[in-house]
Amino acid sequence: MPGVPPTRFVYLGPEGTFSEQALKTVPAADQGILTPARSVPEALDALRSGEADAALVPLENSIGGQVGVTLDEFANGDPLVITREVVLPVQFVLAAREDRSLDSVRSVAAHPQAGAQCRKWLRDHAPQATVVDVLSNAAAAIGAAEGEFDAAVCAEISADRYKLHVLAKDIADNPGAMTRFALVSRPGPPPSPTGDDLTTLAVYISHDRVGALLAVLTELAVRGVNLTRIESRPTGERLGRYVFFLDCGGHVADAQMGEALQGLRRICADVRFLGSYPRAARGDAPPRPAPGLADDDFADAAAWLARLRAGELA
Amino acid sequence: MPGVPPTRFVYLGPEGTFSEQALKTVPAADQGILTPARSVPEALDALRSGEADAALVPLENSIGGQVGVTLDEFANGDPLVITREVVLPVQFVLAAREDRSLDSVRSVAAHPQAGAQCRKWLRDHAPQATVVDVLSNAAAAIGAAEGEFDAAVCAEISADRYKLHVLAKDIADNPGAMTRFALVSRPGPPPSPTGDDLTTLAVYISHDRVGALLAVLTELAVRGVNLTRIESRPTGERLGRYVFFLDCGGHVADAQMGEALQGLRRICADVRFLGSYPRAARGDAPPRPAPGLADDDFADAAAWLARLRAGELA
Amino acid sequence: MPGVPPTRFVYLGPEGTFSEQALKTVPAADQGILTPARSVPEALDALRSGEADAALVPLENSIGGQVGVTLDEFANGDPLVITREVVLPVQFVLAAREDRSLDSVRSVAAHPQAGAQCRKWLRDHAPQATVVDVLSNAAAAIGAAEGEFDAAVCAEISADRYKLHVLAKDIADNPGAMTRFALVSRPGPPPSPTGDDLTTLAVYISHDRVGALLAVLTELAVRGVNLTRIESRPTGERLGRYVFFLDCGGHVADAQMGEALQGLRRICADVRFLGSYPRAARGDAPPRPAPGLADDDFADAAAWLARLRAGELA
Amino acid sequence: MPGVPPTRFVYLGPEGTFSEQALKTVPAADQGILTPARSVPEALDALRSGEADAALVPLENSIGGQVGVTLDEFANGDPLVITREVVLPVQFVLAAREDRSLDSVRSVAAHPQAGAQCRKWLRDHAPQATVVDVLSNAAAAIGAAEGEFDAAVCAEISADRYKLHVLAKDIADNPGAMTRFALVSRPGPPPSPTGDDLTTLAVYISHDRVGALLAVLTELAVRGVNLTRIESRPTGERLGRYVFFLDCGGHVADAQMGEALQGLRRICADVRFLGSYPRAARGDAPPRPAPGLADDDFADAAAWLARLRAGELA
Repeated sequence: MPGVPPTRFVYLGPEGTFSEQALKTVPAADQGILTPARSVPEALDALRSGEADAALVPLENSIGGQVGVTLDEFANGDPLVITREVVLPVQFVLAAREDRSLDSVRSVAAHPQAGAQCRKWLRDHAPQATVVDVLSNAAAAIGAAEGEFDAAVCAEISADRYKLHVLAKDIADNPGAMTRFALVSRPGPPPSPTGDDLTTLAVYISHDRVGALLAVLTELAVRGVNLTRIESRPTGERLGRYVFFLDCGGHVADAQMGEALQGLRRICADVRFLGSYPRAARGDAPPRPAPGLADDDFADAAAWLARLRAGELA
Repeated sequence: MPGVPPTRFVYLGPEGTFSEQALKTVPAADQGILTPARSVPEALDALRSGEADAALVPLENSIGGQVGVTLDEFANGDPLVITREVVLPVQFVLAAREDRSLDSVRSVAAHPQAGAQCRKWLRDHAPQATVVDVLSNAAAAIGAAEGEFDAAVCAEISADRYKLHVLAKDIADNPGAMTRFALVSRPGPPPSPTGDDLTTLAVYISHDRVGALLAVLTELAVRGVNLTRIESRPTGERLGRYVFFLDCGGHVADAQMGEALQGLRRICADVRFLGSYPRAARGDAPPRPAPGLADDDFADAAAWLARLRAGELA
Repeated sequence: MPGVPPTRFVYLGPEGTFSEQALKTVPAADQGILTPARSVPEALDALRSGEADAALVPLENSIGGQVGVTLDEFANGDPLVITREVVLPVQFVLAAREDRSLDSVRSVAAHPQAGAQCRKWLRDHAPQATVVDVLSNAAAAIGAAEGEFDAAVCAEISADRYKLHVLAKDIADNPGAMTRFALVSRPGPPPSPTGDDLTTLAVYISHDRVGALLAVLTELAVRGVNLTRIESRPTGERLGRYVFFLDCGGHVADAQMGEALQGLRRICADVRFLGSYPRAARGDAPPRPAPGLADDDFADAAAWLARLRAGELA
Repeated sequence: MPGVPPTRFVYLGPEGTFSEQALKTVPAADQGILTPARSVPEALDALRSGEADAALVPLENSIGGQVGVTLDEFANGDPLVITREVVLPVQFVLAAREDRSLDSVRSVAAHPQAGAQCRKWLRDHAPQATVVDVLSNAAAAIGAAEGEFDAAVCAEISADRYKLHVLAKDIADNPGAMTRFALVSRPGPPPSPTGDDLTTLAVYISHDRVGALLAVLTELAVRGVNLTRIESRPTGERLGRYVFFLDCGGHVADAQMGEALQGLRRICADVRFLGSYPRAARGDAPPRPAPGLADDDFADAAAWLARLRAGELA
């Protein structure tokens, strides 16, 4: 569009990692400027300072679990919101400077989590190889490209970038592994509801109140709001103090979610809203509402209350 | 007021019972036309048919419990609403055609519930007397006035009306006994909230859902709505099927109550709204809201949600 | 059995009412001595004092609801336990001194609750009749036998006893109406579990604790104990103070019920155990246990815990 | 003791990390054989295979959060139990091959989590230094000892072991940071209750049951069992499937905990018991039991139930 500057995206680098691959699934990224950041805090600092318009960072992995640094960044500092999630299958390749037999591979560089996810495959198919921990998937690829290691466990995009030869594809032990990423913006109106959305929250409970977490879940359950993820992160104060990250089915604009959010606001020490956005496909059906707790039921109940207040009972 | 016809009140008769006494505490009754009905259904039929503008009927007694026939009338037939409650101390007198010593009283007429409430006093102070059951407090007074019985247990208003001599006052064994009455109207806008109101509901639960009553109480508790009375009445279908009558602290116009009512509407088989009206003094303090669940907390949460929806997080 | 004195039964009289009819369904009553009492308190006093070995009293009616005086007696005074329940269909007859046409009946004596339950039938079939309230079903029969009224609404057993002619049978408006009676004893070991039992409790909640009734229901729900009846009765202290009578599916000897009872004991101001006894047929299937909460599940969990405590995890 | 072989301990190495420091606080370690393992899985494999008698591994850090690999090991493979927890303050030092001024330090090696925890201190006190990520605290110390970096962020024990000069102590930004370690054994009878114990569980909920996590928390709350930690880890099946790790106040031998565990066993897809052990001091008071839910209350309720079952109500 003439006169509209392209969107400036920042992502967790280095180039050639899964975050870049995830960002490339976002339509607007085609026309945008894409810049890698050295860390999640650096990416989100660029967004907070206005140097970037959006940031793509990893949230969780179905094998490795939460990405603590991302959650900590969401909980602290100026507010940010998730506007889109990207769910990618994790597909590792084994790559080397040149084509060679697997039997001849004696050293493999891998990020510890990547190595762990391919442990069984490596033991079975590259039995001579010793796995050496390195600090990122891209570092593994670079190490192989520079000849420091015989091969690297990395993303296909890294193999391409560093002109490596792919010795084997799909080497993860669990073929269904997925990573979930968040596209993050500075606060602004959320994307419109689609009917299948998620809302992410950071919730601080009152630690001096027995059953505080139970009360949080009750607020959701009473409104039929489905909890699809709960993660705890330390607040840093001391052992035993946590902030909870919740993913809930629904959109802040929905009646159910609005009522549930108000309930949480009333009973929690603090609630940070981290965005409502469309749910990405992840191989399962969206949850169905509990009986009596669908959109229509909320609309019916609101209309009924209006009649009661007006004195129209019949 | 010239041109305004007086309000036509009907009450549970006969004349000279506690219901008439309760009605006389209602300011508008001064200028109204007061008519006794032979039964609660007759009183409420007169209201439903338009012959009367308001009906005063008993709801419960702190000794005798629920007045089942009133509750059944509320649950069935055309909707009616409570617009005011009246709480009266129960004060029985022992009355006779002429002054006489208590020792000389050999027969005492009493409605069974009245006799039960004065049993100990009668045994201690009129030890020669046999208590004979009759069908109402007024019938007892009439029996004494006509000489059928030596004395009657009745309300002071009955003794006056039938020109009986009061042999003893305050003869109830439990001096704090109270009866609660409802002033009932055809549906219309409820009286304005006063800050200390009650809302009465008839709630039908889904009997095929385990924990349905638990779910009802949870809807109230989550909004901090205090339950001050719960009575069950059979629906008549068969043993084990009940309708629940709830008195809840708060007014239908309040945010808390509105949210709780919508919740009940969603999960119950049926909810019948029976009115919001000022709480009468009954010798105890109004309940205080739970932490985080006061009016202000609801207003704060609503304002916060509006900001979230507008994208204003900071 | 030689040398064993017959059981002395007392029941709510007078003779010829539903209570006598209910008692006659109890096998041991065949060989027992049956004595009517003038009231529920009198019947239970005879039991408490040792004059009787068992008492049969009404508990509730599917149309008229709770029998408050019975519940009050259970809550106060020396402890008593229910050892058996009897559920009887309510079958009213219209009976007169001699056979006569329904059209010729001008006055009908009826206990107010009986009259209410046959109101529609009487209006349709005996349109000339005025219904006159009397103090019991038996009093109605006596009034008809003595010619004071043209006819009586009463139990068939009363018509027999007072040699009345039955003008019409099954005159109750709701043909499925049932009354539930309790056979009561002084405390002793409960009857053996049958696999389909009920346990009756009187529960006093802490009125200064918000959500106390919710907590009671939660204790039951967590153990999968089904609540089949909840009645409130005033404690007599003042308006708003109630004791709750609960009927729960299960037997005090069951693991579920034992755990639930302990839970109630811990959180309630007081719990009075009123007996475990076989559930009588009442036209519905016994409730099925919730998933994971059947007898077997409790046995499995207990065995698992024993293994954990012994350090045997594998 | 003559004839008794020393306990063989394995710990997360390399030598000179916080795990070794934590192990040295365990009395039995004085006489034991201490062997470092290269990873948490390696340490626990040694324990499972019988090469070691006990393993010391990190569980969580008050800044960095869960140690996912330890939790995953607990959830999978042969059962293991925690027999003791060790809570250590996190005290980082800045150490170098020789004494030098902070201003002269240009490169600092640090494990990414350690660097993050000292970020602010380093920026303020060693403003010239670039922080370089390495794979462990010990690797940082080795890098400094070998002259690859000017200084290292590490534990004091590492500085000692690699003969480094401590340039500054207590350099963590949050002075109260703590790490919690577990001493782990193969299954066996748990240590005796002390009155202030923790029980750790891995709980699998039924994902097809709405409110399954709410039900888990309710089982605990009803018995007054305090939840002091809840962590989720992916089960690896797919996004959205988690196993929950719970730390609960109390000991498997306690009545409360026993009842709660049975409840969880009944409603959860699976529960893995991970040990009961004394709570280590961590700067806060042990939680007090809720009213009615102390040890005495459980004993009283059990005695009451026994009386009910025996028919002794009075």
